[in-house]
Amino acid sequence: MSAIERREITGFSNPTVKYLRNLRDKKHRKREGKFLAEGLRLLTDARECGRLPETLVMAGKRDAHPLLDELEAAVAGNGGDIIETTPDILTKITGKDNAQAVVGMFAEFDTSLGALDRSRGDIWMVAQALRDPGNLGTMLRTCDAVGAGGLILIDDCADPFSMEAVRASMGAVFTQQIGRATWDEFVPWLRGADGQLVAASLRDAVDYRGAPYNAPCFVLVGNESRGLPEAYEGECDLRVTMPMKGRADSLNAAVAGAVLAYEVLAAVEK
Amino acid sequence: MSAIERREITGFSNPTVKYLRNLRDKKHRKREGKFLAEGLRLLTDARECGRLPETLVMAGKRDAHPLLDELEAAVAGNGGDIIETTPDILTKITGKDNAQAVVGMFAEFDTSLGALDRSRGDIWMVAQALRDPGNLGTMLRTCDAVGAGGLILIDDCADPFSMEAVRASMGAVFTQQIGRATWDEFVPWLRGADGQLVAASLRDAVDYRGAPYNAPCFVLVGNESRGLPEAYEGECDLRVTMPMKGRADSLNAAVAGAVLAYEVLAAVEK
Repeated sequence: MSAIERREITGFSNPTVKYLRNLRDKKHRKREGKFLAEGLRLLTDARECGRLPETLVMAGKRDAHPLLDELEAAVAGNGGDIIETTPDILTKITGKDNAQAVVGMFAEFDTSLGALDRSRGDIWMVAQALRDPGNLGTMLRTCDAVGAGGLILIDDCADPFSMEAVRASMGAVFTQQIGRATWDEFVPWLRGADGQLVAASLRDAVDYRGAPYNAPCFVLVGNESRGLPEAYEGECDLRVTMPMKGRADSLNAAVAGAVLAYEVLAAVEK
Repeated sequence: MSAIERREITGFSNPTVKYLRNLRDKKHRKREGKFLAEGLRLLTDARECGRLPETLVMAGKRDAHPLLDELEAAVAGNGGDIIETTPDILTKITGKDNAQAVVGMFAEFDTSLGALDRSRGDIWMVAQALRDPGNLGTMLRTCDAVGAGGLILIDDCADPFSMEAVRASMGAVFTQQIGRATWDEFVPWLRGADGQLVAASLRDAVDYRGAPYNAPCFVLVGNESRGLPEAYEGECDLRVTMPMKGRADSLNAAVAGAVLAYEVLAAVEK
């Protein structure tokens, strides 16, 4: 590994440190088209999915690890920048008290609908105006678990490339395809090929259990407080309802999506 | 309503404001045995479940609302303290930029196992060393949705009375019974009456779908990063496994618990 060129950064005011730290800010992230992911496990998942960080930041004093060596070699071989720094500066970049010993900066992926490969899964999750980045990351993680094609974000959703979403996705941000579109863009794209649109709803709905799901099935989940607009529910090919035995009339959005996605999985696998 | 006595507080350094604000801190909350819940909807749910705040804090300039009038009358009738203050001070108390116009301070409930009424549900959720208060609140919300008896917290879990857990529970902190115990306290309590202990596991497990669930069924979910200790899985009457089609080997803890709880619900309702 001695041939790998590493830059050492020890100053808090170093411009690269500032640049990376600012990627926690949505505006800066959007302008630059870059995002951060932390931790050896996440970065190894990314590498194995063919995603390499443009910049790799590591603690200077770190435990040796063969996966870290492989990661470093891959980033260097790809022309990436490798930085050694202090744990304090890593904490400054990630904003997390016990920062992981390694952080990568990635270029954001193409999230246009045209870039999605519809053949890659029988289940897709579609989130409308989902505001919580933790919920969004959790949905990506569920997508991975059910072998979905990906997650499509409709209207004004949280940013899938925020640190919180990336963390909650547990690496699924790299394994899942992500699309972003308005509803008016999404519907013609959906209808341009096979696909059943399903939503949890109270209107004109059948029991979610054993409902006639068909692959490819697009599971639509609405905003955390307002749910889905009526017109969006109207567009669905199937509206299903889940038992609500208590006082509340809804589940957490990521939970509702997961219960539904696992039910769809059982149906389309038969 | 004119007979209701209200205290007006306008100073940030008022000791009551400081006391309430400090309830966001776990140590202070534990020492005082009090917690905060915000929002008219949550407080109305609480009232309808027979839980009244000891102190009710309202914005002085607020929109009139019959439910708020009812709440105020109930708190006053119960000998509670009613405070009118400014939106800025409400924000200081809750730490939330757009504070709700009303906040209540409650006495924590008895969370000993002996206080739980086991007859109140066919499903119970049991969380072990769950660290994320949002996950904890989400599990309470799921408990409410499946008509569970309650949530039992094992070992060192997040605090169900933190603002984040209370918020994420969407009121279920008031509708669900909550127990707290060590594993060594929990097992004898569980075995002292009917109850099937079920966990998602990879060891010696059957497909979660259509597994032989029996009421009352206790669904055990492990810590977010480490899962369940092997000995805890060994104690379970049934170990089930959920499909994992992707790279990851686990789901978000609240999601796993919910998918399992809905499967149990379908079985015990038959």
